[in-house]
Amino acid sequence: MAVYTEVSDEELINFVAAYGIGEVTSCKGIAEGVENSNYLLGTQKGSYILTLYEKRVNPDDLPFFLGLMGHLAGKGIACPTPLEDDKGQTLGRLCGRHAAIITFLDGMWPRRITPDHCAGVGAAMARLHLAGADFAIKRANALSVDSWRSLLQASGGRADEVKPGLADLLARELDDLEAGWPDPASGLPAGVIHADLFPDNVFFKSGVLSGMIDFYFACNDVFAYDVAICLNAWCFETDGSFNVTKARRLLTAYSRERDFSDAELAALPLLARGSAMRFLLTRLFDWLNTPQDALVTPKDPLEYLEKLKFHQGVKGPGDYGL
Amino acid sequence: MAVYTEVSDEELINFVAAYGIGEVTSCKGIAEGVENSNYLLGTQKGSYILTLYEKRVNPDDLPFFLGLMGHLAGKGIACPTPLEDDKGQTLGRLCGRHAAIITFLDGMWPRRITPDHCAGVGAAMARLHLAGADFAIKRANALSVDSWRSLLQASGGRADEVKPGLADLLARELDDLEAGWPDPASGLPAGVIHADLFPDNVFFKSGVLSGMIDFYFACNDVFAYDVAICLNAWCFETDGSFNVTKARRLLTAYSRERDFSDAELAALPLLARGSAMRFLLTRLFDWLNTPQDALVTPKDPLEYLEKLKFHQGVKGPGDYGL
Repeated sequence: MAVYTEVSDEELINFVAAYGIGEVTSCKGIAEGVENSNYLLGTQKGSYILTLYEKRVNPDDLPFFLGLMGHLAGKGIACPTPLEDDKGQTLGRLCGRHAAIITFLDGMWPRRITPDHCAGVGAAMARLHLAGADFAIKRANALSVDSWRSLLQASGGRADEVKPGLADLLARELDDLEAGWPDPASGLPAGVIHADLFPDNVFFKSGVLSGMIDFYFACNDVFAYDVAICLNAWCFETDGSFNVTKARRLLTAYSRERDFSDAELAALPLLARGSAMRFLLTRLFDWLNTPQDALVTPKDPLEYLEKLKFHQGVKGPGDYGL
Repeated sequence: MAVYTEVSDEELINFVAAYGIGEVTSCKGIAEGVENSNYLLGTQKGSYILTLYEKRVNPDDLPFFLGLMGHLAGKGIACPTPLEDDKGQTLGRLCGRHAAIITFLDGMWPRRITPDHCAGVGAAMARLHLAGADFAIKRANALSVDSWRSLLQASGGRADEVKPGLADLLARELDDLEAGWPDPASGLPAGVIHADLFPDNVFFKSGVLSGMIDFYFACNDVFAYDVAICLNAWCFETDGSFNVTKARRLLTAYSRERDFSDAELAALPLLARGSAMRFLLTRLFDWLNTPQDALVTPKDPLEYLEKLKFHQGVKGPGDYGL
């Protein structure tokens, strides 16, 4: 995983020379991230991340991703900033790949989540939503409700290998989600969302949020869907139980920066079911299509089945601690 | 590969606190290296490598490896130095593993080898050999001639799957190597050798050697065997041809720091065959025992068969450019 493209020293030195960050002093492949090749690049000026975009990223989306990071960083959001080369371009070519150099953010992602972390990510997500308001480029959410039926069909025939009855259960839930999903004209506040704000994409330093990374799923969608993704990613314990204290801290901290409308709060349980469906489906596909003896362990799709079931039983925002 | 152990932020912060290098600012798993878990650790004082020793390293060997790095660095050899904690210990425990923090070396390993690189590694290896002379701890070479018969037996039954006739060819070569191998009483100069000085373990900065890393195969053996390993690792082109200019530069630069005896030069062809056998056998085992759909590609054992055949045809040190 992680490093797919081997960059030669000559190619690297030539590439970096255009960025005005001094000579390369070191370059090490990072074992984190699975979509792209990432290197921790040291130069005379400091530390940077060098990313080579591999085939899972659509090149047409790169101006959105890089432009968004630059836009948000310019508004004071703690996220990486792409560097411009001597021609003013953030997107370059290296080893036959699209490539970019972005700033390095201090901090570590939290392995053991506390309510304070949840408050931190809630507030930062709300500020991200506000800061994205005047970003000019648009990108549809390619992994929203319209994509789930075909995602399910890609795995559906084998879903019962993971758990008997799973294929039927998901098909029925998908009927509900498709019927009830808020359409763009619903008036729910929308804009740029991160769409993958899991703990390993959020850095903290001495307990304070120091950065959000990995904007390669960012897109335009309703803000509350981003909140729903975070409820699933941050507020469940490893035993599957929902920690309402964490949810309350996350939602309260968010609402201090950008208050929820009544319609958003009413939509939250359905959006949380949809978010659970989205990660369940991609994990299910990976689970069924990763060789048993591969060195990466695919993430358990059934973790998200438990989350889905929790949200099916939710009566209203009170169950999320509000 | 590479990162096997996931270190939590709390455990890491507690561990690093004992080393007097300030607070942790970042920690990223490195995708290089296959034996241990390596992290690039940033603190208020600078950059370090954090290594967690996984099961392929014998814990009894760690005082040798860490002590050797400290010893060599103290003699001015460009290699990592293990840090001492507040109790004066270089070897600690983290996440149930033995662990150490070592200094970070600038530079990049060369992807395209030039004769200048070969001269650099020759000179540095000779200085390493001299600097190890008064290192007190001893470690036998666990992957020398005594181990090859059992290594061959571990794969031998399936060697012909890789190339028809390979098992017989290796068995015959092993007969020759066992019969002719210099015994410790042969008087060949010996001491601490690196034993794995491949290009990815040697860093250069602006063409000048800036560091040698990964001392986890280091041991006591004849110096010329280390030289033989480097002839194989640095002086063949990717098309399998031997580049005598590179060999001459490597050997000449070495001999300026520590001159070869006539006996060493006479032994070099046999030692080079043995070195080819050692890497052929470990690669053969990995080749036959790595799942076909694993994400790491095992290295081709037949690359070392070609090298072995070259050295079988060598008449004397003149064929190495001397």
